[in-house]
Amino acid sequence: MVNFDFISPTKIIFGKGTEERVGSEVARYAKKCLLHYGGGSIKKTGLYDIVVNSLKEAGVEFIELSGVVPNPRLSLVREGIKICRENDIKFVLAVGGGSVIDSAKAICVGVPYDGDVWDFFTGKAEPKECLDIGTILTLAAAGSEASNSCVITNENGWYKRGLNHDIIRPKFSILNPELTFTVSPYQTACGIVDIMAHIMERYFTHTRNVELTDRLCEATLKTVINNAYKVLANPKDYDARAEIMWAGTLAHNGLLGTGRIGDWASHQIEHELSAIYDIAHGAGLAIVFPAWCKYVYKANISRFAQFATRVWNVDYSFENPEQTALEGINRMEKFFKEIGMPVTLKDANIPDDRLEEMASKCKLPNGDSVGHIVKLTREDVLNIYKLARG
Amino acid sequence: MVNFDFISPTKIIFGKGTEERVGSEVARYAKKCLLHYGGGSIKKTGLYDIVVNSLKEAGVEFIELSGVVPNPRLSLVREGIKICRENDIKFVLAVGGGSVIDSAKAICVGVPYDGDVWDFFTGKAEPKECLDIGTILTLAAAGSEASNSCVITNENGWYKRGLNHDIIRPKFSILNPELTFTVSPYQTACGIVDIMAHIMERYFTHTRNVELTDRLCEATLKTVINNAYKVLANPKDYDARAEIMWAGTLAHNGLLGTGRIGDWASHQIEHELSAIYDIAHGAGLAIVFPAWCKYVYKANISRFAQFATRVWNVDYSFENPEQTALEGINRMEKFFKEIGMPVTLKDANIPDDRLEEMASKCKLPNGDSVGHIVKLTREDVLNIYKLARG
Repeated sequence: MVNFDFISPTKIIFGKGTEERVGSEVARYAKKCLLHYGGGSIKKTGLYDIVVNSLKEAGVEFIELSGVVPNPRLSLVREGIKICRENDIKFVLAVGGGSVIDSAKAICVGVPYDGDVWDFFTGKAEPKECLDIGTILTLAAAGSEASNSCVITNENGWYKRGLNHDIIRPKFSILNPELTFTVSPYQTACGIVDIMAHIMERYFTHTRNVELTDRLCEATLKTVINNAYKVLANPKDYDARAEIMWAGTLAHNGLLGTGRIGDWASHQIEHELSAIYDIAHGAGLAIVFPAWCKYVYKANISRFAQFATRVWNVDYSFENPEQTALEGINRMEKFFKEIGMPVTLKDANIPDDRLEEMASKCKLPNGDSVGHIVKLTREDVLNIYKLARG
Repeated sequence: MVNFDFISPTKIIFGKGTEERVGSEVARYAKKCLLHYGGGSIKKTGLYDIVVNSLKEAGVEFIELSGVVPNPRLSLVREGIKICRENDIKFVLAVGGGSVIDSAKAICVGVPYDGDVWDFFTGKAEPKECLDIGTILTLAAAGSEASNSCVITNENGWYKRGLNHDIIRPKFSILNPELTFTVSPYQTACGIVDIMAHIMERYFTHTRNVELTDRLCEATLKTVINNAYKVLANPKDYDARAEIMWAGTLAHNGLLGTGRIGDWASHQIEHELSAIYDIAHGAGLAIVFPAWCKYVYKANISRFAQFATRVWNVDYSFENPEQTALEGINRMEKFFKEIGMPVTLKDANIPDDRLEEMASKCKLPNGDSVGHIVKLTREDVLNIYKLARG
């Protein structure tokens, strides 16, 4: 186990009807807020009315900024920053999925900063202050409701970049699994893959003696897999939605990575895919992850065999652990297909004429490489895109 | 799954050498603190000097209050409150195990309260304010370093009572597994039982559809059991100490109980034992828990069978699940013995002449009963003490 600092101070308010508490929760922090949301689905479902009534009852004024899209855009973040500054707003309430929350986080670090908010995403500056954030989650996927992460897409060049900093963790997040009943099977599956990727990217490590976090990762993965079948069979299965929603938060609040060095290469490799082709992040991960596994598993066969045995119930082959490792990757790929995800670029109708462009744009946080299990060069990244062609 | 609120904002600073950061961590909150500790073992181990130097380097003044004993006493809490008030101290640094941290928590809620601090433990008052708390943990057991719990013994009548409130969670806790190398095998085993009890008291529930937290509980229990053998074989096994220390925190920060109704009867039943006989809480739990299990398991055989199968690797008997359930309880009892714990009152040289007194003093939080799996009356509590005689 390696040394770590861990803080996850977000108050989680979980369960049926909890969205009605939003006004009183915001009022603990502010009497005025920016109400940030997406394309208006919250108006169709009635959630918007509940939120507005609750804010009014609690005496919280609000200004609205809607229009967040998947892979949230820098231009809207800049608009939000301007509104908050002009109206002296110190609290942003995000109602939606990870894109809305990420957009809110970027606004919140941008407001008190003199420079350009994009500086935080290029590594040019580190945030020192952040407005307070609250969320009502409507999609189990990104884990942004309690994470220190935020990913924004700059339309000028279509760069998709992340910021990780504890200062951007929300003060509270309201999670009512009922609010995810209307999420389509496709988006539900995308969320499931995103959740699993957040766990697997912590799970695949060379760090030894991490039994507790290994087992916690395995416990969370198994729960997500078991309940994936249930929610896809019955989108209104409250209990299955609840398991996946809470798993999604724990998958990315940092707990499962404590004491271990993770490998985030597949997330970086996927980012270029969804930045250019604007596909759902989860679908992109379902394409990239199997290819990444096949490309790197030989660097740590025992770990991939453990993954196969403990998560996918593969019988461990004592004679041929590599076979076990490969069977685990196969089962994962099969599962992604079963829940309706593409597992190759071809499945997603993505042509293979811009693989080199994506490889050249992929961020290499280690300087000249990305990842931990294998430190991937640009050539390796290109090879993984090629392996994903199908 | 039932609705829940969950907040665990304590910053965890985990690993080798982390105690050297204590001064700068305290300085984020205060320039003066109460340094609270136990019988002076921290002076023998050298930890005291490290703490004092770190505080001085960070420019933090301190006043000392030592003398905390296991089952920490109300009288010392009152002394701490007086010192803090007289010296305008707003921060308490606890260096030690759960007893020291619990004593610090009681001081911290007592200082800003006009009445008697014991009011919080009898339920007469609820804390509204709390000084800031930081901890350096030297014993993996109580989980107080991140919990909302605090247990104090009132010498006037030897009442042992708990307070649970989110306001008392520490701001930070420093966990260096090396600081537990000198803990004796007996105390190490007591800590292990306490950790396991915190998990099992959440695990044994009638709440259905709690797959994620079930699996997280099982993961944590298995890790503690596996590493118990390792630390008892080699007290300086850093990795095994680290697994148990982190498990001890997660066992009681509330995470494993999210969405489920726990059963805390065995903790209440044990409290009367250690209040009167002043035995270690963990040893008391090793006596009470098997008796409690045997007394209540019929109320939820499937759950006790799951416990046996998933935690203790008992082969599930499809024909006779009750046999599986009982075998799980047997394995638990055998494990407690193997690590050197008493499992009957006789093992601990506790006479059976005050069982009725203990049963009559036992707190019944449900009004006329305690517990959830079975709502135990005073007579049931007495029966469990009798079953524990050996």
